[in-house]
Amino acid sequence: MPKTIRDPIHGNIVIPDWCVKIIDTHQFQRLRRIKQLGFASLVYPGANHTRFEHSIGVMHITLKLVKKMDCSEKERKECVAAALLHDIAHAPFSHSSEYFLKKYLRFRHENFYPVVKGSAIEDILKEEGLSLSKISKLIEGVSLISGDIDADRMDYLVRDSHYTGVAYGVFDIMRLIDGITFRGVEPIISYRAIRAAESLLLSRFMMYPTVYHHHVCRIARKMYERALEFCVEEGQLNPRDLLKMDDYDIVSFLRSVGGYAGEIMKRIDERKLFKRAIYISRCRVPGRIDAKKAEKEISESAGVDVEKVIVDVPEEEDAREFKALVEVDGMLKKLEEISPLISILKSAEKKSLMLGVYTTEEYVDKVAKAALRFFGIREIVQKRLDEILR
Amino acid sequence: MPKTIRDPIHGNIVIPDWCVKIIDTHQFQRLRRIKQLGFASLVYPGANHTRFEHSIGVMHITLKLVKKMDCSEKERKECVAAALLHDIAHAPFSHSSEYFLKKYLRFRHENFYPVVKGSAIEDILKEEGLSLSKISKLIEGVSLISGDIDADRMDYLVRDSHYTGVAYGVFDIMRLIDGITFRGVEPIISYRAIRAAESLLLSRFMMYPTVYHHHVCRIARKMYERALEFCVEEGQLNPRDLLKMDDYDIVSFLRSVGGYAGEIMKRIDERKLFKRAIYISRCRVPGRIDAKKAEKEISESAGVDVEKVIVDVPEEEDAREFKALVEVDGMLKKLEEISPLISILKSAEKKSLMLGVYTTEEYVDKVAKAALRFFGIREIVQKRLDEILR
Amino acid sequence: MPKTIRDPIHGNIVIPDWCVKIIDTHQFQRLRRIKQLGFASLVYPGANHTRFEHSIGVMHITLKLVKKMDCSEKERKECVAAALLHDIAHAPFSHSSEYFLKKYLRFRHENFYPVVKGSAIEDILKEEGLSLSKISKLIEGVSLISGDIDADRMDYLVRDSHYTGVAYGVFDIMRLIDGITFRGVEPIISYRAIRAAESLLLSRFMMYPTVYHHHVCRIARKMYERALEFCVEEGQLNPRDLLKMDDYDIVSFLRSVGGYAGEIMKRIDERKLFKRAIYISRCRVPGRIDAKKAEKEISESAGVDVEKVIVDVPEEEDAREFKALVEVDGMLKKLEEISPLISILKSAEKKSLMLGVYTTEEYVDKVAKAALRFFGIREIVQKRLDEILR
Amino acid sequence: MPKTIRDPIHGNIVIPDWCVKIIDTHQFQRLRRIKQLGFASLVYPGANHTRFEHSIGVMHITLKLVKKMDCSEKERKECVAAALLHDIAHAPFSHSSEYFLKKYLRFRHENFYPVVKGSAIEDILKEEGLSLSKISKLIEGVSLISGDIDADRMDYLVRDSHYTGVAYGVFDIMRLIDGITFRGVEPIISYRAIRAAESLLLSRFMMYPTVYHHHVCRIARKMYERALEFCVEEGQLNPRDLLKMDDYDIVSFLRSVGGYAGEIMKRIDERKLFKRAIYISRCRVPGRIDAKKAEKEISESAGVDVEKVIVDVPEEEDAREFKALVEVDGMLKKLEEISPLISILKSAEKKSLMLGVYTTEEYVDKVAKAALRFFGIREIVQKRLDEILR
Repeated sequence: MPKTIRDPIHGNIVIPDWCVKIIDTHQFQRLRRIKQLGFASLVYPGANHTRFEHSIGVMHITLKLVKKMDCSEKERKECVAAALLHDIAHAPFSHSSEYFLKKYLRFRHENFYPVVKGSAIEDILKEEGLSLSKISKLIEGVSLISGDIDADRMDYLVRDSHYTGVAYGVFDIMRLIDGITFRGVEPIISYRAIRAAESLLLSRFMMYPTVYHHHVCRIARKMYERALEFCVEEGQLNPRDLLKMDDYDIVSFLRSVGGYAGEIMKRIDERKLFKRAIYISRCRVPGRIDAKKAEKEISESAGVDVEKVIVDVPEEEDAREFKALVEVDGMLKKLEEISPLISILKSAEKKSLMLGVYTTEEYVDKVAKAALRFFGIREIVQKRLDEILR
Repeated sequence: MPKTIRDPIHGNIVIPDWCVKIIDTHQFQRLRRIKQLGFASLVYPGANHTRFEHSIGVMHITLKLVKKMDCSEKERKECVAAALLHDIAHAPFSHSSEYFLKKYLRFRHENFYPVVKGSAIEDILKEEGLSLSKISKLIEGVSLISGDIDADRMDYLVRDSHYTGVAYGVFDIMRLIDGITFRGVEPIISYRAIRAAESLLLSRFMMYPTVYHHHVCRIARKMYERALEFCVEEGQLNPRDLLKMDDYDIVSFLRSVGGYAGEIMKRIDERKLFKRAIYISRCRVPGRIDAKKAEKEISESAGVDVEKVIVDVPEEEDAREFKALVEVDGMLKKLEEISPLISILKSAEKKSLMLGVYTTEEYVDKVAKAALRFFGIREIVQKRLDEILR
Repeated sequence: MPKTIRDPIHGNIVIPDWCVKIIDTHQFQRLRRIKQLGFASLVYPGANHTRFEHSIGVMHITLKLVKKMDCSEKERKECVAAALLHDIAHAPFSHSSEYFLKKYLRFRHENFYPVVKGSAIEDILKEEGLSLSKISKLIEGVSLISGDIDADRMDYLVRDSHYTGVAYGVFDIMRLIDGITFRGVEPIISYRAIRAAESLLLSRFMMYPTVYHHHVCRIARKMYERALEFCVEEGQLNPRDLLKMDDYDIVSFLRSVGGYAGEIMKRIDERKLFKRAIYISRCRVPGRIDAKKAEKEISESAGVDVEKVIVDVPEEEDAREFKALVEVDGMLKKLEEISPLISILKSAEKKSLMLGVYTTEEYVDKVAKAALRFFGIREIVQKRLDEILR
Repeated sequence: MPKTIRDPIHGNIVIPDWCVKIIDTHQFQRLRRIKQLGFASLVYPGANHTRFEHSIGVMHITLKLVKKMDCSEKERKECVAAALLHDIAHAPFSHSSEYFLKKYLRFRHENFYPVVKGSAIEDILKEEGLSLSKISKLIEGVSLISGDIDADRMDYLVRDSHYTGVAYGVFDIMRLIDGITFRGVEPIISYRAIRAAESLLLSRFMMYPTVYHHHVCRIARKMYERALEFCVEEGQLNPRDLLKMDDYDIVSFLRSVGGYAGEIMKRIDERKLFKRAIYISRCRVPGRIDAKKAEKEISESAGVDVEKVIVDVPEEEDAREFKALVEVDGMLKKLEEISPLISILKSAEKKSLMLGVYTTEEYVDKVAKAALRFFGIREIVQKRLDEILR
């Protein structure tokens, strides 16, 4: 029987019968207990929403979009399944566990195969005659789910805005959905929806420094990563277990494990986080940076235990283009060719990436000096921390 | 230094310096990890908000209201402290732990004394020259915090609406705040704000069956209560410890404890909840009901293990009046004297209370028959469960 | 071709082809220039919305509801036509012209026949094979359009809230629409939507004194009525012409006509309105009141020109019941039988009706005394005007 | 006495006593009857809001901002007066009359002197000891009211979004207001509010093609301009009178004047607007364009009466820079130096300007051909009108 769920973003969401079955599995229910924005609630107290409601929201948007596809009912259902399951492989605190999984397991949250294979979800998909490998490919590659203008972003920007209270994520979702057509499974943006498409990408750009890369979120995330790494190196944690855990599991594990990791968890619980020693534009330090080496040298030079120094080098994403296609005068063009704003977005994003060195409150000055020396920056030009603190 | 927090309900909230200090204690930070609505997220997936943001919201509203009080600055601060701390003694999953605390400790969440006494919070309050016993009294008794038209409700109705997506909690909060004046610490509603005051009480009335007493919330809560009781009786849990725990602690405790309690927790995690066997208006069964006795007799008569039967008798609140005062033509009158709607609200509330008997899916029919027999109800008049669901 | 319109309330509204044709007629376009709430913008500056968007909103809701009707496609279309056209016969400033039309033409805005008969709209309806007389009957009588829980109210409460900024009109429209089924064309409220239905009626109750009957709206409306009457009696205006006019026509007519009517219009333009001399609960003066007689006697007794005195006696609506039907346990019951709140709403409404005597600023005191004498009220108990003034 | 007004955007707005006096003058009350967005309600039926509420909104934001200025109370009040009065000289349908006033009177709506001089408003300002010439200068020149990041835009973007239902205008107004400080009367954007400032300018960029320059708005506006010009040339209208008129005056004048102008007004009333013959990027036709000459030649070449052809050449704004100042590391920099997005905004704006040739429905094809010939464009590359509509 289809089921209706009340969602603060999309209102009443009607869930098809076969999706209800997937949602009812314990693998999917686990998403109820994985925070969408990891530790963002330490900055935005309302940000306690989960991958569960987000996944259902993406399914809802996808259901609307696939109606416009010229394809078989089976293909449509595979897209909907991909939407519903695109985050099934998230580990505790979502992206906060990602670096860790990548390092130890070469695993990204898009690799839904290992999580779904052999589970009740696989059975349900088979019953519906849907192909696991097809869904897997859709999650990793299809523009509808993981393109520039995709159902995933359409949901999370509005949703994250609702819960954080930050207005940036609000864009014209109705106009955008109305303005998308398809060539096969490839979404095409109609000319009249260009502003809506730009708006989505700009929203994302605005949300990055304000929410997703807010320095407090980064600090908490880096502390958490450090605690996990420590536990693995001490043989206390098998990286593979993380994939089955939820936020409750990992929090209680870290609380109980004691030692360095326990101390870090206590700091997160009590919001006694590391502070910024330096916080500068990534552009100011050209070239690759080996964070581990930087941590070692800065801590030595500052005379501070290396466990108390974190160097946060934001990942430079691969030279990526905005490949979303727009139909203009009957021809297909890349959005970034048509839109001056989008064409500059890449460099704008790069410019807004920040490099941070964090340490405990008492060592901020010492570590700041050592870090500036290490990165070869003469003047201390960054604003005093307390001034720029939100 | 005062601090600004972004709140999805009230926008930017400026927090006075001395309140920042209270918020920074680990006792207060614990509220970040106590869900405002307990298990309501099992019905409304967005309802993951916490006592932390609610407490700050109530402080925010109170800061606006105390400006109108004709009293000393110290008294004003005591009201604000009471607002900020009114939920400090909440145990995991908020009200879901309340019955348990009452049974074993005769403790209500308004008893902030035992939690605050001897803590860093006490020190901060003393530093500010504020009286602990005064604040304690304010929390339990003052209309501003715990009256009919109080800052607590003004916050939670709008907040719970925002996160559940249910529109009922929206009322005219600006008009209400504007329309309140004070005699001492007693709020007086001005005539022009009567509709706003009615509206708040009606919102609350609407939210009860829809959210707070939604049968799925009741079922999860009752299952959780049962698991806690079981652990106490087996000597696995000291009731007193609950006051220091957060949601993470109790979830991981119940997961790890195994046995009956562990099974219940697994059911909650996987949303394999008990189902309604019967669900009828409380009014249809006059007189006191001993739930424990009913559980025992119904389960025996149905031939089902008593651990699988829950009888949920909603507490009839003490004959309570709406005592909020309104100024009409220079005289003070009770709101319920002036407002026909409010005068009938008590009986309307009573009429909407539901009595439920819950059991596992496979025993629904057996238990339903036994329960109807037990309560002396001849015809099965309740709608089929799946029809009235949600 | 169907057309999409952006509506601030319902988002993108898709309008069926045949409705687009109706909307494109000049009779319907006239609604663009008739303010939904008459003179309410004098109190709520945002309230400039029109019958045009409201009519389309009601059509939108009706399109959703008729899908659930078990009837022919033709009958469905007749319901939609009735929704779209239910306000086509509104005269300038909507309800502000209603008393006037009733007095001179025994005409109510529900009488859509005289306006539509012989117009392009009639042709379009005939082309679609729809019956004019059937639509006419639906507008006046069918619960879907003019019942207690109807599409008209569902639209105007939320819409009026949006534009006035008053929160009262917000109710759970999604839950209500979801919870309505039909027996023929009669809407039946399902048990789980009772709170939503109550909520709609309570919203309406709240909006009355706050917006629709706000004393400033009443004063402006009464002044406007007076100006119209004066013009008819002087032979300057044919009442029948009003049906073809829009707000622009009548305003420019009154501005140009000079004399008493011109003066009144100038007062409205400059917001130099009459003031309240007395403003008391209608209940305090039992029995029928002849407003014209009261105006004459009060003005004489006060020594004030009768043109400067307005007595506003709210119409007591016919003893009306809430007839909306609810399905409980398979049986149909009236909402007011089941809901204590709704059962008391009638008397609550009556109690909130206000009787006002208005005059120009300089005569307020004189007229107040005379009015109190006339109505036999000894003590001046009403609050000072400026105190209760919004 | 201060007064509170309910505004759908900012909630309860408290208006200082002396501002109430200004608002109560008939000059200011006239703004109640001047639509903020001219003919935009022909596209967005909700866009009936007026300069009245916008002016009060700008006053409200300015009241918040001036608190942060380090200047005398008098200077602060002058800023507030400038905010409240910045649109007092708007003629009917706001910007729709602007080209006309510029052509005949060399008048821009910022020239508040001629309207206020000798009026009751002047008296009130003098009573308060405020300087008319100072206020005049502030309106035309101060960044707070007419800069890039000013109180005017902060209000109208959000307000226009609320009434049109288009989401683009929503930006983070709270964060922006919080992040502005002052050097004298010059607003400085703090580093942490850069995203909010960018967001405001991007919102404006998005709103232009979607709302302000929507082709239907342009067409109606151009038709209205044409009707006004015609009346002046026929000696039926004195341009100077426009400054005292409101929307009602000019509509009823055009309706009554008959002839060509009357016909145009009828077309607007009945929404039988001219259609697009061609609609191409302004960039495709380099150099200055003389619209009058183009109209003459295109109509002749098409064999269509010149009165039925409108050439709409968007004004290229003077090479303008974004001069808003940002404080970075203690230094002041221009926003466009720091923000890649803003640096490209100028060229993006230029690229989105559209050149239109409009005519009545029956001549669209003829005029399209003639226009393409006139502008030397060989291929018809624009999309079919009905495809790109809305």
